[in-house]
Amino acid sequence: MDELTLDNIAVARQRIAGYIRHTPLAPRLKLRNELPEKLELKLENLQVSGSFKARGVFNHLLSAAPEELTRGIVVASGGNHGLAAAYAAAKLNIPATVCLPASASSDRRERIKRWNARLFFAGDNPSDVFQFAAELAQKEGLLFIHPFDAAKTLEGTGTLGMEIAEDVPEIDCAVIAVGGGGLIAGAAYALKQLRPEIRIIGVEPAGAASLWTSLEAGTVRELAKCSTIADTLSPRAVCDRTLRMAEEFVDEIVLVSDAQIVRGMRLLWSEFNQLVEPAGAAVLAAVLEGYVDLSSAKRPLLLICGGNAAADSLFDSYSHAAFTSTAYAAGRYAVPSK
Amino acid sequence: MDELTLDNIAVARQRIAGYIRHTPLAPRLKLRNELPEKLELKLENLQVSGSFKARGVFNHLLSAAPEELTRGIVVASGGNHGLAAAYAAAKLNIPATVCLPASASSDRRERIKRWNARLFFAGDNPSDVFQFAAELAQKEGLLFIHPFDAAKTLEGTGTLGMEIAEDVPEIDCAVIAVGGGGLIAGAAYALKQLRPEIRIIGVEPAGAASLWTSLEAGTVRELAKCSTIADTLSPRAVCDRTLRMAEEFVDEIVLVSDAQIVRGMRLLWSEFNQLVEPAGAAVLAAVLEGYVDLSSAKRPLLLICGGNAAADSLFDSYSHAAFTSTAYAAGRYAVPSK
Repeated sequence: MDELTLDNIAVARQRIAGYIRHTPLAPRLKLRNELPEKLELKLENLQVSGSFKARGVFNHLLSAAPEELTRGIVVASGGNHGLAAAYAAAKLNIPATVCLPASASSDRRERIKRWNARLFFAGDNPSDVFQFAAELAQKEGLLFIHPFDAAKTLEGTGTLGMEIAEDVPEIDCAVIAVGGGGLIAGAAYALKQLRPEIRIIGVEPAGAASLWTSLEAGTVRELAKCSTIADTLSPRAVCDRTLRMAEEFVDEIVLVSDAQIVRGMRLLWSEFNQLVEPAGAAVLAAVLEGYVDLSSAKRPLLLICGGNAAADSLFDSYSHAAFTSTAYAAGRYAVPSK
Repeated sequence: MDELTLDNIAVARQRIAGYIRHTPLAPRLKLRNELPEKLELKLENLQVSGSFKARGVFNHLLSAAPEELTRGIVVASGGNHGLAAAYAAAKLNIPATVCLPASASSDRRERIKRWNARLFFAGDNPSDVFQFAAELAQKEGLLFIHPFDAAKTLEGTGTLGMEIAEDVPEIDCAVIAVGGGGLIAGAAYALKQLRPEIRIIGVEPAGAASLWTSLEAGTVRELAKCSTIADTLSPRAVCDRTLRMAEEFVDEIVLVSDAQIVRGMRLLWSEFNQLVEPAGAAVLAAVLEGYVDLSSAKRPLLLICGGNAAADSLFDSYSHAAFTSTAYAAGRYAVPSK
C-alpha cells in the first residue's frame, strides 16, 4: 500500500488535483543572451505555498484517515515543507505545527504565521529539527509528516515528474535541485519510466553536498555542517530511500557555489522577472556555469523548485514610500460618456 | 497607413511574434482566501523587458525604414518604455538613448545600462522628459518613439488585447492599469471589437489620476503634480488620442491609494510568488478593495502590466550572505553507479 509505483503516483495526482496548481512552463525565453532558447523552465515556484512541497503534503493529508488528523499535524522543515504544511492544513481546516531551525528567514516565519500554524524553533539546521518535531508528535498525538523520507511525499514529487512529461513530451534532460533528495527521487522515478532515455542531473550547493557525499560513500553520510545560502537545500543528510533511488535514477551531480547561485537569481530576475529563492536558481546556475552539457540535449528542462525568497523588506520600503494624501479619493467612478 | 485597425493589429502581431513572449495566464489561483477562483491573471510582467511596453517598441522598430534607424532611437520614459527600448534596440543592434526622470529607481537605471543604452536624466516626472528627448532627437537625428501617443504603440498594446481574447475566449470583464492611457486604449480597442459585451475598467493611482481628470473635463488636462509609488503610471497627462479612445472603450475608472497598491503587491507575492512593481498590482488592489464589482462577471481578467520592482538590494544581501569556502569544488560529478 505504501509502495511507490507509477499507478500510485497517478492516483496521487487525481487526489491532489483540486488543491494544487498545474504550474506553467516559462513562455519561450527570448533572453538577450546566455541561455539557449530550447531550454524549458518549469515554474514550480508558482505552486501554492511557493514550492513543490505542497504536492507531497496534500497527498499525505488527503490520504490520511480522519482519526489521524484529529489532533493535527507537525512537520520539521528548513522552510518550504513548513510553508506547504501550513498552507495545506489551513486549506483543509487541520491544526498545524511547524518546527523550523532558528535561522529560518523572517519572511518564512511571517508567512507561516499568516497561515495560522503554530511555530517552534529548534537548532540550526533542518536536520536538527526532526527530533524535536518527532518528540512533539509523540507527546501531543500529532501526525508527523516527513519532508522527504516517506512514500506519500515521493508520490507527491512523482506527480511533478508526470506533469513535466506531459508538459514537454519530447523532454530528454531534466535538471533538478537536491536537498534531502525527495524531489529528484520522486520526479526522476516517474520521468525515467515515462521517458527511459532521459538524462537526470541533480544540482546541490557545494556547501551542502549531502547526496553527493553519500553517493561517493555508497551509504548515507551526514555532513558535519552545511554552508550555503540555499537553506532549503541544506539538510545534513539524505535518507537511505532517496539515496537508493538517486543511485538508480540520477545520472550526474553538479555542485554550485553560492556566488553562482546568486548569479542565477539575478539573471532570472533581470531577464525574466521571476524572483526565486537560492534553491530555485541552483539549476540555472549549473547551466550558466557550463556544468551541464546541453549540446546533445534536444529538449532540456530546468525545474525551478521554489520561489520563497526573503522579500518582505521590499514591501516595507514601498509602504514607507507610499503617498497618503491625494486630490482624489480612492474608489469607483463611471466614465462620463457612459 | 498609420490608422489603427484590427487588421493592422493582426499584422503587428505577426511582425513582433519572433521577439516577444506569449505571456501565460496564472495557473488557477487556489489562494487561501480573498480572491474568487474565476479570476484570470494575465502575467504580462513576464514579457521581455518586464512589461507590455516591449510590444509597441518592437512594432515601431520592425516597421521603421532602415534609414530612420541609422542614427539610433531615443525615448522618454518613466522606466518601462525605456527598458523596452533598450532591450529591443540591443536585440536588433540599433543604438538606443533612454531619457528618464531623475527619480527613476537604480534598478531601472542598472538594467538599462546592462542592455547597453545611453542614459540621460531630466526632470522629475515622465512628462518632463519628453521635451528633453524630443530636442535630442532633433539635434542628433534620432528616431523618437513616444511611449503612448503613436499608432504603432497602440497597435502594440492592441496585440495584447487580441492575445487576451484568444487566451480567454469567454472573457467578459478586463481590468487594466492607466498611465498615459496607451495600454488601456489599444487593448480595449481590440477587446471591444472582438468581445463587444466586455466591460473595461481602468485603474489609476488616486495620486496620478491623469485619465480620470481629463475624462471629467472632457479634454486633456495636465496634473500639477503626481504623488504615487506607481511611477510607471504617473505621466502628468494623457494625450488627446488616448483620451478619445478611453471615452469610447472604457466603462469605469477605479482610483486606488498607494497603501492599497502595496497590499496588492504583498498578496501577489505571499499567495502567488510574483514580485511586481506597484503599477502591476494596481488592478489587484482595485479588486481587493471591492472597487470592482465582479458579481456579474463570469470570466474577469486582471492584466498584470509590469513587474519591474526595485529588487536589486535583495541580490546584494544574498551576495553578502553567500558562503565562499566549501568542502567540495563546484563542478560536475558522475554518479558512481553509472
